[in-house]
Amino acid sequence: MAKLSNREKLLEEGLRVVHQHGFGASSVRDIVQAAGVPQGSFTNHFASKEAFGLEVLERYFARGSERVRATLRNDAIAPLERLRGYLRSQLEHQKQNDMRSGCLYGNFSAEASDHSEPIRTRIIEIFRENQESLAYCLKAAVDAGELAKDTDIEELSGFIQSSLQGAILLGKAQRSPVPLERLERVLFSSILRSPSN
Amino acid sequence: MAKLSNREKLLEEGLRVVHQHGFGASSVRDIVQAAGVPQGSFTNHFASKEAFGLEVLERYFARGSERVRATLRNDAIAPLERLRGYLRSQLEHQKQNDMRSGCLYGNFSAEASDHSEPIRTRIIEIFRENQESLAYCLKAAVDAGELAKDTDIEELSGFIQSSLQGAILLGKAQRSPVPLERLERVLFSSILRSPSN
Repeated sequence: MAKLSNREKLLEEGLRVVHQHGFGASSVRDIVQAAGVPQGSFTNHFASKEAFGLEVLERYFARGSERVRATLRNDAIAPLERLRGYLRSQLEHQKQNDMRSGCLYGNFSAEASDHSEPIRTRIIEIFRENQESLAYCLKAAVDAGELAKDTDIEELSGFIQSSLQGAILLGKAQRSPVPLERLERVLFSSILRSPSN
Repeated sequence: MAKLSNREKLLEEGLRVVHQHGFGASSVRDIVQAAGVPQGSFTNHFASKEAFGLEVLERYFARGSERVRATLRNDAIAPLERLRGYLRSQLEHQKQNDMRSGCLYGNFSAEASDHSEPIRTRIIEIFRENQESLAYCLKAAVDAGELAKDTDIEELSGFIQSSLQGAILLGKAQRSPVPLERLERVLFSSILRSPSN
């Protein structure tokens, strides 16, 4: 295996530390120690902790986007099954972190959006992009006759996005899969209306 | 007016500072300065920053409970109007803080639940108690014939609670009332089923 650069180690271990302990609670020293690189390395590679935070966010977004492509935007799967797959991939992602890390977007929203305008701006863009992927899937469900033709896609995609963030946040506090499992049940039993209803 | 004690000033200003800037990002020095009391005052009154955080949380909960009593648990109002009033009181609360502070429970869930088991435990209890108030209101709606008799109250109250947290969190990132307004619309148009449906 090729040797990881110090920059790569800082981003990879930094993402893990920040996701687990929070951006504010993770000092540069914590990140440098987790990465096992010299202290000076951080300032060589990143202009500030904020610049580092933005890169960590980008790395997390790239991984989330893989889940989006495999589910919501995967035209090979029936639309509502993609949505179900997306919700389950979120639950799997939380389970990998023992249900205690939450979503980095939500964590940054709660703790960093008031301190850094560049981070807040990027999070808004990411939420917007994820909502567009939800809307893409819902539109496909309408076109396939899985959802009623008068479904308000903008409204529903925004609602699913914010409800998903809430379910992940409560699941983090409770260290429980229940809020995410419940979201899937309520969405599929009450909210997603088939054309016959 | 009676003179506020230093303890009272620390809790009152501390709640404001912690709600606005986050628990981790607010140092004891920040809190002492905002309260305008001598530095030593903090350690005279609180065993630790965690102990202080728990008292701040209690103060926030007491105020939230006033909104709950005026809405969800107010038997003088028709049940579903209480629920609507509760959602709107959340929006008013956010607007008072320029849509940027979020909910202290959600913020603590995101940033402090991994660092303090006493804070996490108390947040879970508070979420449980708020969910019971939502369930109380939904049960009254079923009894009054406003909701279908087979409504799953545990499921629906948990869902509303987590979706509300998500809407507040996205509203904080976006500094926008839209996620909370959308939650009200989707709940009342799609999820709350009248007996005739």
